[in-house]
Amino acid sequence: MIVALAGGVGGARLAVGLAAVLPPSQLAIVVNTADDFDHLGLAISPDLDTVMYTLAGVNNPVAGWGRAKETWSFMSALAELGGDAWFRLGDRDLAVHVLRTLALRRGRALSAVTRELAGRLGIRHALIPMSDTPVRTRVLTARGVLAFQDYFVRDQCRPRVRGFRFAGSRNAQPAPPLARIMRSRQVRAVVICPSNPYVSVAPILSVPAIRAWIRQRDFPVVAVSPIVGGAALKGPAAKMMRELGCEATALGVARHYGSLVDGWVIDTKDAKLQRAIERQGKTVLVADTVMNDRGKSRQLAQRVVSFARGLG
Amino acid sequence: MIVALAGGVGGARLAVGLAAVLPPSQLAIVVNTADDFDHLGLAISPDLDTVMYTLAGVNNPVAGWGRAKETWSFMSALAELGGDAWFRLGDRDLAVHVLRTLALRRGRALSAVTRELAGRLGIRHALIPMSDTPVRTRVLTARGVLAFQDYFVRDQCRPRVRGFRFAGSRNAQPAPPLARIMRSRQVRAVVICPSNPYVSVAPILSVPAIRAWIRQRDFPVVAVSPIVGGAALKGPAAKMMRELGCEATALGVARHYGSLVDGWVIDTKDAKLQRAIERQGKTVLVADTVMNDRGKSRQLAQRVVSFARGLG
Repeated sequence: MIVALAGGVGGARLAVGLAAVLPPSQLAIVVNTADDFDHLGLAISPDLDTVMYTLAGVNNPVAGWGRAKETWSFMSALAELGGDAWFRLGDRDLAVHVLRTLALRRGRALSAVTRELAGRLGIRHALIPMSDTPVRTRVLTARGVLAFQDYFVRDQCRPRVRGFRFAGSRNAQPAPPLARIMRSRQVRAVVICPSNPYVSVAPILSVPAIRAWIRQRDFPVVAVSPIVGGAALKGPAAKMMRELGCEATALGVARHYGSLVDGWVIDTKDAKLQRAIERQGKTVLVADTVMNDRGKSRQLAQRVVSFARGLG
Repeated sequence: MIVALAGGVGGARLAVGLAAVLPPSQLAIVVNTADDFDHLGLAISPDLDTVMYTLAGVNNPVAGWGRAKETWSFMSALAELGGDAWFRLGDRDLAVHVLRTLALRRGRALSAVTRELAGRLGIRHALIPMSDTPVRTRVLTARGVLAFQDYFVRDQCRPRVRGFRFAGSRNAQPAPPLARIMRSRQVRAVVICPSNPYVSVAPILSVPAIRAWIRQRDFPVVAVSPIVGGAALKGPAAKMMRELGCEATALGVARHYGSLVDGWVIDTKDAKLQRAIERQGKTVLVADTVMNDRGKSRQLAQRVVSFARGLG
């Protein structure tokens, strides 16, 4: 079994590829929930939904979030009524938020709700929130501490970041389906998807039992660099790295993860960094990591799986 | 000042007319809330919304509920996800439910939320839920006791009714803006709109202080018959009357209300019933009561207001 750690778009795209090359019994996709938040009384899980919609093939590939064939009547009526309209919720997308909120209020666990919603959308692979306990990313910025979505959506990542906190992580447990996999000793590799190291992957690793499990691993960890040619394909990863004094390159990312990662998959554009990363004691695979379509997701996933097996 | 008591469509149409002929300082529209319910975790107020949307001119005139230019993406996604789809919530309509639910959860009163939403929709007249305390209609039927929306929407009014209960009414207080009007002694008439006597008007009158205020009145109560030519223009009023052993005519309705009403407005189609109602000790106005458009609402409202003034 392979466990993939994923955030938003990049994670979702690799997850699609992994789901295409591995049967449901051999893949679990663990998703960041630290950007979840309550908005308009609804429980919103942006990364979970991006991965879920992408796996189900109902995602909006242009926006990178939300659903395809979406309509926006709710938002327009909400704005007319003076409601908070800075976080855009599509009409179809709302159905997931309403059902999730209802189930959570009734005491169901996020992991159970997610399994049910994913099943309804035809997803056969395990899609698991990192934890059923709320963990919330706080962004330490020059303008003070911001809730993640305030930083990310409302303020469009403009504030300069100084660091991150994952409120609630100290007492968070892995979601039960993940805990069962961790105990099973069936895991042959962990794949860190090309997701933001600070706000997608770090929150997952901030759950103490997950971090300890990876630290004490008897399986390889391979990671796909989220930085290609000195830039993130989407999102603020490169900006954050620069603001935190890191080099915004695949090498910088490799240094950031340090001993947590055994094998790096970097893009062909970054082939020149292969030696430098190898000098950090890592095995490196150079591949086309830009997943513009489901075919490329599948090709990359196939190479990542082979690479991980070779390291096992 | 005139206080109008209203339920759904018929009440909404007369309210529109009254709002056209009376300035905001001279009209308060009090709406049934006993068909409110929690659905999918949302606080739904069907009658309040029908009156609000109709006053604002954004209602769907064909359906008699919900908004014009509505879209249904939420419902289709909800059904796909296995959610309860028997109660239809349009995408625009949802904005009201989400904002109301959020405000109520934060401890705001329904009357305060309603004033705010109505204000945002450009309504200048007072639109007041009968009570901020939940009162809930239970329909006693041959199949047992049903929650109102289960009877009305899910079961399409098919079960034979044996009676009604208004759970919570005993301890319900008039909403504060209504209580202020009741105390003001400025009320010159109460108008009972052509709404269902059992499930729209009776719940309002089930609030003890409202009922006592009307019983001890020093102003006339005029009512517009919801039964025209032996049928309700919309909804199950006539069916309910027959099932409860009442004659489903304007005369039957007059008998039902008894001493609560001083003056009856009946439709020209029912002119032959005028004498019989007058023999009950009532004053009767025969008028065209079928409000197919806003012009006819206005005409009827003008006649109702003059009629009430004549009785004062």
